[in-house]
Amino acid sequence: MNDAKAELGKKILKIKKAKGLKWADIANRIAMSPVWTCALCMGQMSAEPHHAAGIADILELDEEDAATLCEIPYRGAQPMPPTDPLIYRFYELVLVYGTSWKEMIHEEFGDGIMSAIDYDMILERQPDQKGDRVKITMTGKFLSYKRY
Amino acid sequence: MNDAKAELGKKILKIKKAKGLKWADIANRIAMSPVWTCALCMGQMSAEPHHAAGIADILELDEEDAATLCEIPYRGAQPMPPTDPLIYRFYELVLVYGTSWKEMIHEEFGDGIMSAIDYDMILERQPDQKGDRVKITMTGKFLSYKRY
Amino acid sequence: MNDAKAELGKKILKIKKAKGLKWADIANRIAMSPVWTCALCMGQMSAEPHHAAGIADILELDEEDAATLCEIPYRGAQPMPPTDPLIYRFYELVLVYGTSWKEMIHEEFGDGIMSAIDYDMILERQPDQKGDRVKITMTGKFLSYKRY
Amino acid sequence: MNDAKAELGKKILKIKKAKGLKWADIANRIAMSPVWTCALCMGQMSAEPHHAAGIADILELDEEDAATLCEIPYRGAQPMPPTDPLIYRFYELVLVYGTSWKEMIHEEFGDGIMSAIDYDMILERQPDQKGDRVKITMTGKFLSYKRY
Amino acid sequence: MNDAKAELGKKILKIKKAKGLKWADIANRIAMSPVWTCALCMGQMSAEPHHAAGIADILELDEEDAATLCEIPYRGAQPMPPTDPLIYRFYELVLVYGTSWKEMIHEEFGDGIMSAIDYDMILERQPDQKGDRVKITMTGKFLSYKRY
Amino acid sequence: MNDAKAELGKKILKIKKAKGLKWADIANRIAMSPVWTCALCMGQMSAEPHHAAGIADILELDEEDAATLCEIPYRGAQPMPPTDPLIYRFYELVLVYGTSWKEMIHEEFGDGIMSAIDYDMILERQPDQKGDRVKITMTGKFLSYKRY
Amino acid sequence: MNDAKAELGKKILKIKKAKGLKWADIANRIAMSPVWTCALCMGQMSAEPHHAAGIADILELDEEDAATLCEIPYRGAQPMPPTDPLIYRFYELVLVYGTSWKEMIHEEFGDGIMSAIDYDMILERQPDQKGDRVKITMTGKFLSYKRY
Amino acid sequence: MNDAKAELGKKILKIKKAKGLKWADIANRIAMSPVWTCALCMGQMSAEPHHAAGIADILELDEEDAATLCEIPYRGAQPMPPTDPLIYRFYELVLVYGTSWKEMIHEEFGDGIMSAIDYDMILERQPDQKGDRVKITMTGKFLSYKRY
Amino acid sequence: MNDAKAELGKKILKIKKAKGLKWADIANRIAMSPVWTCALCMGQMSAEPHHAAGIADILELDEEDAATLCEIPYRGAQPMPPTDPLIYRFYELVLVYGTSWKEMIHEEFGDGIMSAIDYDMILERQPDQKGDRVKITMTGKFLSYKRY
Amino acid sequence: MNDAKAELGKKILKIKKAKGLKWADIANRIAMSPVWTCALCMGQMSAEPHHAAGIADILELDEEDAATLCEIPYRGAQPMPPTDPLIYRFYELVLVYGTSWKEMIHEEFGDGIMSAIDYDMILERQPDQKGDRVKITMTGKFLSYKRY
Repeated sequence: MNDAKAELGKKILKIKKAKGLKWADIANRIAMSPVWTCALCMGQMSAEPHHAAGIADILELDEEDAATLCEIPYRGAQPMPPTDPLIYRFYELVLVYGTSWKEMIHEEFGDGIMSAIDYDMILERQPDQKGDRVKITMTGKFLSYKRY
Repeated sequence: MNDAKAELGKKILKIKKAKGLKWADIANRIAMSPVWTCALCMGQMSAEPHHAAGIADILELDEEDAATLCEIPYRGAQPMPPTDPLIYRFYELVLVYGTSWKEMIHEEFGDGIMSAIDYDMILERQPDQKGDRVKITMTGKFLSYKRY
Repeated sequence: MNDAKAELGKKILKIKKAKGLKWADIANRIAMSPVWTCALCMGQMSAEPHHAAGIADILELDEEDAATLCEIPYRGAQPMPPTDPLIYRFYELVLVYGTSWKEMIHEEFGDGIMSAIDYDMILERQPDQKGDRVKITMTGKFLSYKRY
Repeated sequence: MNDAKAELGKKILKIKKAKGLKWADIANRIAMSPVWTCALCMGQMSAEPHHAAGIADILELDEEDAATLCEIPYRGAQPMPPTDPLIYRFYELVLVYGTSWKEMIHEEFGDGIMSAIDYDMILERQPDQKGDRVKITMTGKFLSYKRY
Repeated sequence: MNDAKAELGKKILKIKKAKGLKWADIANRIAMSPVWTCALCMGQMSAEPHHAAGIADILELDEEDAATLCEIPYRGAQPMPPTDPLIYRFYELVLVYGTSWKEMIHEEFGDGIMSAIDYDMILERQPDQKGDRVKITMTGKFLSYKRY
Repeated sequence: MNDAKAELGKKILKIKKAKGLKWADIANRIAMSPVWTCALCMGQMSAEPHHAAGIADILELDEEDAATLCEIPYRGAQPMPPTDPLIYRFYELVLVYGTSWKEMIHEEFGDGIMSAIDYDMILERQPDQKGDRVKITMTGKFLSYKRY
Repeated sequence: MNDAKAELGKKILKIKKAKGLKWADIANRIAMSPVWTCALCMGQMSAEPHHAAGIADILELDEEDAATLCEIPYRGAQPMPPTDPLIYRFYELVLVYGTSWKEMIHEEFGDGIMSAIDYDMILERQPDQKGDRVKITMTGKFLSYKRY
Repeated sequence: MNDAKAELGKKILKIKKAKGLKWADIANRIAMSPVWTCALCMGQMSAEPHHAAGIADILELDEEDAATLCEIPYRGAQPMPPTDPLIYRFYELVLVYGTSWKEMIHEEFGDGIMSAIDYDMILERQPDQKGDRVKITMTGKFLSYKRY
Repeated sequence: MNDAKAELGKKILKIKKAKGLKWADIANRIAMSPVWTCALCMGQMSAEPHHAAGIADILELDEEDAATLCEIPYRGAQPMPPTDPLIYRFYELVLVYGTSWKEMIHEEFGDGIMSAIDYDMILERQPDQKGDRVKITMTGKFLSYKRY
Repeated sequence: MNDAKAELGKKILKIKKAKGLKWADIANRIAMSPVWTCALCMGQMSAEPHHAAGIADILELDEEDAATLCEIPYRGAQPMPPTDPLIYRFYELVLVYGTSWKEMIHEEFGDGIMSAIDYDMILERQPDQKGDRVKITMTGKFLSYKRY
């Protein structure tokens, strides 16, 4: 059922390259953030019609593609554990820091979780003399475990 | 081989609770960040002797415990996929955002990865009227894939 | 780290049987629902101190046990797939109805999920001439996928 | 062997969207419940001929499609563990509440299980000031383990 | 939680051997079938008090053991796939005959399943000149998939 | 390599339905049992030429199909664990009764196994006032573990 | 349930080493083959009483150990895939030669299998100028798939 | 990358059947053993050009097929654990005899392994009054673990 | 997404064979090392345009192929555990030597890892009277675990 | 069966640390290489008596420990995939470079493998201005696939 969104993702990557666009260019066109726009184009998010229209406009997609952008995906684009080293490093962070996240979030907020749904993320380059760094800032709403 | 570090982790959680300390208190004592200090106590990092001494001091640990803090762990504290919902949400982020991280980091930096070794992280509460948020800021050095 | 909560769970099952108590009796003592109270005793939830005190009182637990009830668990008590037939049937519902839940919830609410954190459940006997039925009523807050 | 039913499921989703129908509309046409009707269309149930005829009528399906609706499926539409967050939350409920279901059902009914075959389910929106909730009500016949 | 039942199973095997009893002897004592009695002693079934009393009597078990026999088990005593050749052959039957069972039961009964709960089984020796055969006769109630 | 046999299985199911035949009708035509005939058609057994000829005759298959029936399959038609509830119940029987089969067969026959190769099976409807039952009778030759 | 046989295996390995015995010495004592005797001592076979008596005699085992040798094991001593290189090479043979065994045995014998129960094996050193070779000769009874 | 060799394997099986050839016939043509020849045709070995020419000649293959026979395969033709009973029995031998092979080979040769590369095998029918047997004779060079 | 790179890999292998080229020939053409060049052609590395141009020139690839060589791959070309014996031996080295690498690298460098990104490798034939050897020399930058 | 070797490994790590020894010191004492000596102490190799005696001498081990060093291990000290980042990087090399190793070794040597048994390895620090590097040099005997 995700096939259409996966196919569209490949098509977008080609067009984006051919046009020399960056995710920020596409995101600016619809006044959204680059990470979310990228995730949408990679088939992991669903657009509202005006987002889809804006993306279709800048990438010269047809109507069916725009409709595909609006579809809600069956999410999960990764083989797990990830075989790609870039993606694996994030998996490794879960292995290494999972218990620390748990202890620190519970200490600060009590019993509950950080939402991965009411969630946003920024990805930036942080210049550094010893070598530039990837900087990721994420926020997720804290949700308390209901006691009932 | 991690057994000593895992045992020590449980012991530290008890002492920390009994003394009413926070990770920030322990971290301040050794002038390190709370996340790293927590990961160290959870058995996922290795301390230098002066860190271990500081932690032993504030938590009233004995010398053997201090030595255990300095040991380099066999890392990886998680069953995978994580069964705990708080930790699972981070695993889910890899499932959903893995390809976006890949596309965006390559666009900005070229072929390579974000290091999970030359890496740091801050975890904060971000007040929000609709419900406070967990804010995580991470930076990792970008490493270029060597062409040789 | 869950060992204490798991041990306590077994102890509670024995005391409960010896005293001839039902989950509803224990739940009434602390004015909470039977399902949540059972999940708490099985080591999957964390109590507030007054809940723990009430349960300790009715079950004659000591202070350490009461403290254990207040601890936040590393959740996930099941081998997966479940080997026990009663529990497996719920796993089977996910296999069979997973896509239907997805289509129906998205139709009604749009893109997002039913929370398993801000969540409650009632379990009842529903008399039926052809054989009584187990009736489970669950509600979970709908969370919209954030577009940002 | 499920291929025909899976293909039909995708076709129905497209027609349903194009016609602006809801699951309730389709269900009403055949005087069945929306959840069962949705599960049927998603390829997880088998229809009687008059159900198939009604659905074919409202969705303008051909005879072969109607026959496909009547076929008994090889059930199980999910990768497990589910990669989609909406479906995963139900899997998580099994992880967290599995032992509680077991203890509570045995307490009330004795040794046996809740049937996932003689089973029905309702899915509703429950308005709530803090955010509407998904409400699911399920009943399954209790089956006693035979002692022989 | 099954530990007590597993331990008891080993104890019963020893006593049974020492006393030179057969499963049929134990089963006759409580007027039940040998298969069910064996499954009960292996920790996979729950006894009613009078069954437990009879078994405790013939095997000279104490009261705690009798109570353990009455407990409802977390079922599932096998590693899967089974490593033991005798048990593996049954697993192989599922691999080879699974689709035939499905086609034949649906042809005869329509959409539904053979219950593994309202289920009984007999195991016998069938003399045969070319080598005696194991004969297993099982019946399970047919349960129709509910259409609702 | 099983592709031809799997394809033929689907084709036979369609023809059988179109002709209104039952497995017993096809089996009678070749004077074999319905279970074996069904397993053959589902691609899990190999026919002798006269069986294949008989089946080709009643189902109007061509010569290539008849040859395909005679081919020896790479057996194993199931995903494991089975996702389909009907087939899963048999898998569950292995989980629950595996150790009982082992203890009872060894008690009666000594060290060895029940053959799944020199094996036969009958599947019948057993009328029952509380609901008809599926009755399966299987016999397998007992094979002694060789001591050498 | 295999614990006793596994423990005994370790004990035998120690005694065998201390006494400077070879498997052939132990096997000769009971007039059986070295491979079977070794498999028996490693907990994978069951002895008849006179075998057990002979082994107990040569190894100075007590009566309980002799009884343990007679017990029928839950077979399967390997983690799979094997982590040990010596054992892995046999697993690799299945990977590489599995289809050839299938084609050649069916060509010669028709549809059926080589029994792993009515089975024997000899392990020898085969002198060779380029380096001595391990020679394994195995025979297993051919079992025809029953057509019924 | 093995696709060409796998396709060729299927083609060879058809031609071999149509021509009424046996593996021994094909092997004789190139003066090699039947097992190796079969493994080559099944895509698990690589031929030298004169072997390929001989096989192409007897089976009337074209030049591209001959070239395919010479290609070095990505080996491993089995799903593991094997679902086919004939192949599974060899897997079972690893489960049951793995530790015996290890103990016996180390006793005779010291620390090292039996090579699965410098390896050969013969498969024969061994007549037997109680039923003919499959006889497999394999030799593999013993390789000492290097101490350095 | 790797499909294009995988397809190109197969195409290159054919052309390379037809032209009688070696990896060293291709590598010399672009003044890079043979291992990296081979990994690039196998779809596991990304080229800079001048590398791609050089390879396209020597192999007579078209512009689209050259562009494909420049694309950053989703890495990971292996089924794991590897089924091919040549590749498996490297996996086995991780099984056997993993802990030794860990102890020795930490002893020499402290807490950190050897980079698999800032990494290079040479593969050579090392003549040896007892049989030539494969010699692999790899260097990876040591990365210290950051303490922060 | 590896328990004794694993226990001894932990003991040696403690003694080595207390005595301030390096692997090279221990290796020099027995005139062997540091990598092999480390692998031996980590329980993955077997010593000859004079190696064991030398190590026992420098580490003040008792006779039983020396005997344990001489035992042939059940090899494989790693969970797979490795959870520890240092060890995982080597696993990643197999994922990324597996096919390149295969193509390059076959090009140079023909069909066969690099032995992981007749194998040696050196681990060194390679000074580098941009950060020192870990240098690993390994050689393994090439073994030709036997054609027979």
